[in-house]
Amino acid sequence: MPTVYITAPPDAAPRIARELVEERFAACVNRVDCASTYRWDDEIHQDDEEILLAKTTAERYPALVEHVEATHPYETPCIERFDEAETVPLFAEWRANATDG
Amino acid sequence: MPTVYITAPPDAAPRIARELVEERFAACVNRVDCASTYRWDDEIHQDDEEILLAKTTAERYPALVEHVEATHPYETPCIERFDEAETVPLFAEWRANATDG
Amino acid sequence: MPTVYITAPPDAAPRIARELVEERFAACVNRVDCASTYRWDDEIHQDDEEILLAKTTAERYPALVEHVEATHPYETPCIERFDEAETVPLFAEWRANATDG
Repeated sequence: MPTVYITAPPDAAPRIARELVEERFAACVNRVDCASTYRWDDEIHQDDEEILLAKTTAERYPALVEHVEATHPYETPCIERFDEAETVPLFAEWRANATDG
Repeated sequence: MPTVYITAPPDAAPRIARELVEERFAACVNRVDCASTYRWDDEIHQDDEEILLAKTTAERYPALVEHVEATHPYETPCIERFDEAETVPLFAEWRANATDG
Repeated sequence: MPTVYITAPPDAAPRIARELVEERFAACVNRVDCASTYRWDDEIHQDDEEILLAKTTAERYPALVEHVEATHPYETPCIERFDEAETVPLFAEWRANATDG
């Protein structure tokens, strides 16, 4: 099953997480504080961000990406898909039900 | 090699991490604070949790899952396996020795 | 594309992250505080560390590993490669440009 790795500014992350779960794009989202170092316009920047780890299904992944791209404050949001090699059955079942996936 | 992604309430996470290392299910566990948004009984909840990232071997993975399922406070714990595409040799060797895997 | 998972002590992590981006080994690095439980010399230890999640390209991955191994304070640093199953095109393009990969 896919875990989707998204970064967002702290003032947008809680809203994105809530929408993903409310609209059944994801069964749950774990949010983690992070410090991001990155290159933009050829200068090095460091900002506080949050990592969102959204637990979804293969079926719901495309719609999740579409929603994040449409509502994210950045023009070029970090949205990456990591596929789990295994997910324990009980959690996998709960996840599918929570996303209608 | 597998990294096992587990979430747990803050009052159980340190104990789970310590047991996984003490009983050689994992060579090490990185614990990270997180805020979890999830759907349960058709309502949206948000709780503080911890993510445990347990570094183990393919051989020890089944026993690690069995131990977490037997000792975790939740009925449906999040336990996911992510396989590393590569692990630097020195760290991989240390990991195998620390888990007897 | 690869996300490289590195752990480091808090006093070295910011420097490693900055170097990886400045020298175009990575387009960006997300740093996260963590508590690490591990076995060393057959005793269980717990230390504060940071997880660095470095976003790079397949072409730049070997040089990134070489740089971290050469400059990391540990003899046996944790350096693991996780390959994303998918990366949204805009972010993937930005990443390739920022690393010249």
